[in-house]
Amino acid sequence: MAQKMEIGSYLFERIKELGIKTVFGVPGDYELVLLDMVFDAGVNWAGNANELIASYAADGYARVNGYGAFVTTFGPGELSAYCGMAGQYAEYVPVVHIVGYPSTKAMKERAIMHHSLGNGNFGMYHEMVRHITVASTVLDDLSTAPAEIDRVLNAMVYFHRPVYIGVPVDIGPQTVSSHYLEVPLQKSLPPNPPELEQLVVDQIIGLLSSRKNPIIVVDGGAIRNRVIEECTELIKLLQIPYFITAMSKGGISEALGCFGGVYGGGASIDEVRRYVEESDLVLFIGSYQSDFNTGEFTANIAPSVSVDFQRFVVNVLGTEHKLCMNYVLRRLISVLRSGNKKLQVGDQVEWDPYPLDRLEAPAKLTQDFLWAALGGYFQPGDYVVAETGTSAFGILASNLMNTENILMYNQTVYGSIGFATGAALGSFVAGKESNTIKRGILVTGEGSLQLTVQAFSDVLRHGLNTTMFVLNNDGYTIERLIHGMEASYNKIPEWDYSKICPLFGPSFQNKYYRIETPEQLLKLLADAEFNAANCTQVVELILDKHDAPMSVIRSAQAVERFNKAKQVQE
Amino acid sequence: MAQKMEIGSYLFERIKELGIKTVFGVPGDYELVLLDMVFDAGVNWAGNANELIASYAADGYARVNGYGAFVTTFGPGELSAYCGMAGQYAEYVPVVHIVGYPSTKAMKERAIMHHSLGNGNFGMYHEMVRHITVASTVLDDLSTAPAEIDRVLNAMVYFHRPVYIGVPVDIGPQTVSSHYLEVPLQKSLPPNPPELEQLVVDQIIGLLSSRKNPIIVVDGGAIRNRVIEECTELIKLLQIPYFITAMSKGGISEALGCFGGVYGGGASIDEVRRYVEESDLVLFIGSYQSDFNTGEFTANIAPSVSVDFQRFVVNVLGTEHKLCMNYVLRRLISVLRSGNKKLQVGDQVEWDPYPLDRLEAPAKLTQDFLWAALGGYFQPGDYVVAETGTSAFGILASNLMNTENILMYNQTVYGSIGFATGAALGSFVAGKESNTIKRGILVTGEGSLQLTVQAFSDVLRHGLNTTMFVLNNDGYTIERLIHGMEASYNKIPEWDYSKICPLFGPSFQNKYYRIETPEQLLKLLADAEFNAANCTQVVELILDKHDAPMSVIRSAQAVERFNKAKQVQE
Repeated sequence: MAQKMEIGSYLFERIKELGIKTVFGVPGDYELVLLDMVFDAGVNWAGNANELIASYAADGYARVNGYGAFVTTFGPGELSAYCGMAGQYAEYVPVVHIVGYPSTKAMKERAIMHHSLGNGNFGMYHEMVRHITVASTVLDDLSTAPAEIDRVLNAMVYFHRPVYIGVPVDIGPQTVSSHYLEVPLQKSLPPNPPELEQLVVDQIIGLLSSRKNPIIVVDGGAIRNRVIEECTELIKLLQIPYFITAMSKGGISEALGCFGGVYGGGASIDEVRRYVEESDLVLFIGSYQSDFNTGEFTANIAPSVSVDFQRFVVNVLGTEHKLCMNYVLRRLISVLRSGNKKLQVGDQVEWDPYPLDRLEAPAKLTQDFLWAALGGYFQPGDYVVAETGTSAFGILASNLMNTENILMYNQTVYGSIGFATGAALGSFVAGKESNTIKRGILVTGEGSLQLTVQAFSDVLRHGLNTTMFVLNNDGYTIERLIHGMEASYNKIPEWDYSKICPLFGPSFQNKYYRIETPEQLLKLLADAEFNAANCTQVVELILDKHDAPMSVIRSAQAVERFNKAKQVQE
Repeated sequence: MAQKMEIGSYLFERIKELGIKTVFGVPGDYELVLLDMVFDAGVNWAGNANELIASYAADGYARVNGYGAFVTTFGPGELSAYCGMAGQYAEYVPVVHIVGYPSTKAMKERAIMHHSLGNGNFGMYHEMVRHITVASTVLDDLSTAPAEIDRVLNAMVYFHRPVYIGVPVDIGPQTVSSHYLEVPLQKSLPPNPPELEQLVVDQIIGLLSSRKNPIIVVDGGAIRNRVIEECTELIKLLQIPYFITAMSKGGISEALGCFGGVYGGGASIDEVRRYVEESDLVLFIGSYQSDFNTGEFTANIAPSVSVDFQRFVVNVLGTEHKLCMNYVLRRLISVLRSGNKKLQVGDQVEWDPYPLDRLEAPAKLTQDFLWAALGGYFQPGDYVVAETGTSAFGILASNLMNTENILMYNQTVYGSIGFATGAALGSFVAGKESNTIKRGILVTGEGSLQLTVQAFSDVLRHGLNTTMFVLNNDGYTIERLIHGMEASYNKIPEWDYSKICPLFGPSFQNKYYRIETPEQLLKLLADAEFNAANCTQVVELILDKHDAPMSVIRSAQAVERFNKAKQVQE
């Protein structure tokens, strides 16, 4: 029988229905009453040092758990998180940002409330946030509040992108009938028209049968749209060479037997670039043609050889079909499994996707040596988050071909520095909650770390036993490579990284290591206690400020070329 | 003779013309070429750990210097600073936010650049920022670029609020004729219609002559609109009781002989409230009727007794005149100086504006004792920045009646926690640059400090010899008082504050003090070496989590009453 329930409780019941068990955020007086209802609904509250970190944590949480949520206060709180939301938007991460609003009466009276702009307006932040959400609402009307919550959350699920719900301080505690909860949220995409779907699948099977050297490229959109299981199955069934991209690195197993390497146009190793670009059929799943994901737009897969799978569109050799890729992939797998179609066996991968593995140890630690060595350090059950810049590019050279069950990601498209620290926190919380994480590993640069370093106080207090590798190369190396190699603006303050844990969590056990040579690194990576990661560990890696992984050097050069080429001449 | 100059250099020449000597910000690849031009123009670059801190620093810098500027990158960089800009907007702080944009060609081609939303759009951030600026532009056309820069900067000066200038990476280095610089920026407001101005001044003089107990209330708008010299002169000429508000605390001398205290409706001490609300003529200069500035809207100065001075409007007993207050005040002073008008001498202030000064030392340190004691510690030449929440309310009880030449402020209207740390940095840089600061003092709570603590690495490296008082009361005390006294969301991670300087600036000298009793506090505040402040000093003040200054308790109770009263009943 339907009962009365508070609007705030209704909202958090829906949050729970989406599988969200922990909500991030920062308290503020417009949202305090609402926070009580988080607890009432049996959802965990994981407060953060600031709102940007909360938004990144919710992002990292959603990448593991499926969906994420965070709560902030009207004005300063929410605005400080817009960067995180824009990243969620760009990278298809479904997160709901819940914002505590002033009372409906204060808004109606145009009172000059704190956190407002002092002009009696209250709608401006909602107007701003429309640009970085797929749906939004401010619950200023009790009668439509449950429907509005459902509309916005359903849009988050449908588009797989962030949404925004404002809850005025007086609305949250008001009650509605619980019968609205009887209609569950819509968690599946609508089915495709069956005839069209079958037609397209037949066409793809036909192409697979007739083309000489088909390949699969699994791009970031495949992860973000949750078709990795389908991709994996497809690779196993077809046994043709498959490739990943910067955005999909670590999102799919590299141990499926016919792994070709990381493709990113001019940033790829030569064998990979040649094989991909000479293929006569590319099943391109979840492609995302952003600059950092394509070697600065040097990727070159012609539409005439490509079947491009997107969330709502499948494009076969240049012809667009309005079909959801997840159903198309499932039908394709089903047809292939039925075995009625005879397919040629693809080529073998005859090159080494990770040539840096054979690098001899240099006198001082170099990036190329580091990334190859880390490949051997990663284990099943590791969650690895790599920061934008040197780390995200560098980690592309870490060999995961012998290691299944790794969860690894970076923010390739949006590329916000500081993201990884907060996102790692959220992912590790989700991993701990679902008991799927063995070790939490954050790989970042010291320039990026400085933006959101206080996230470490949460890393410590949640007992996540994180290992953080900090690349200390005396400033923004990736920026140096783009422009201003010796410019003072690319230098940053020198910190004592051994003090991070003592400041942010003095009561928690921690270890600090400083590594300057390949020998020290190899010794540490082989150390049993270090590998056990029974407490928070900070590893400072001393690197030369001019040194960078090959893929960074190539990409950074491409960025400067690209920017220069675009300078209109007077 | 006119020469060719780069657009970026043109922009920074204009910045210099506004008296801005230091620009804050965070480097990003879309702005690196532009940053070279900061140096070329002879302007200092003071890079920050993150963009929110940069926006706060530019705010604090502008509060001392008049105008401020900071540079960030398109997308993540700028979005992370919107909270700081909204605060500048609400509090009338003129700051220009310069944003490095992708190239015009990339934007025209709708390329999926990093930091974009991945949909080929580039105008969305500019649309968002319109809500929190008074003018904005993206320089996508060389021919209009100088005029656009001037238009936007002139609007900043005119409205005394933030603006935004986007500079595509290819546009910055292109050259224009320097002859545009021959027309200076418009730095004065247009004059008032002389007859109307004279009429209004005569009317005010008439009121001053006929009313029995006129007073002056100098509110925050007087500081933000730069009429403090006029207010000071007026007080000296009239010798009638004058009052300040939360927003104007520390913005005008309290040593002018007839200081009445801090007025904030129900948050005031009884004598102050009675005297102000019973006055039959209030010269209310720069009034800003926000919740925190009015004891949650309990302030009560009737329009029928009030002459309300605003930037563009002077309202005499309820009749609005479109006049700029600065000229009206100057004419009023000029007429009063001429001495033709005989005025009655006002009442004497017969109460003690700071009754907490007489408080006996309690066993453990309390807020009320602390704030009174700090009043005695402040000296001429001190810059004091107080954080939103406990500190901003508490410091209202610090007696400045014996101390001239203090610069003190808080962010009363916008009330963003974390603001003070970044703003203090900016103010202290400006004070050092102009050689007007003796000691830089930051008073903050540990909850607020955690949001932007990495600003300390700049505080240390700029050699600002800051003294920071951190109120450690085990969480968000002000939030506890509003709602959730024992709620876990009002608890924050425990840090070891003695490690702040060792982490963020290991090579700089620093001291740390932990204070738990009134005796320890008084001893420290009397210590010559501590007072000399020859290095960065962190003072951790241990306070009970339930303890708060009287004004906070009153205001917080008012907030809860206000929020509850506004809950619409079903």
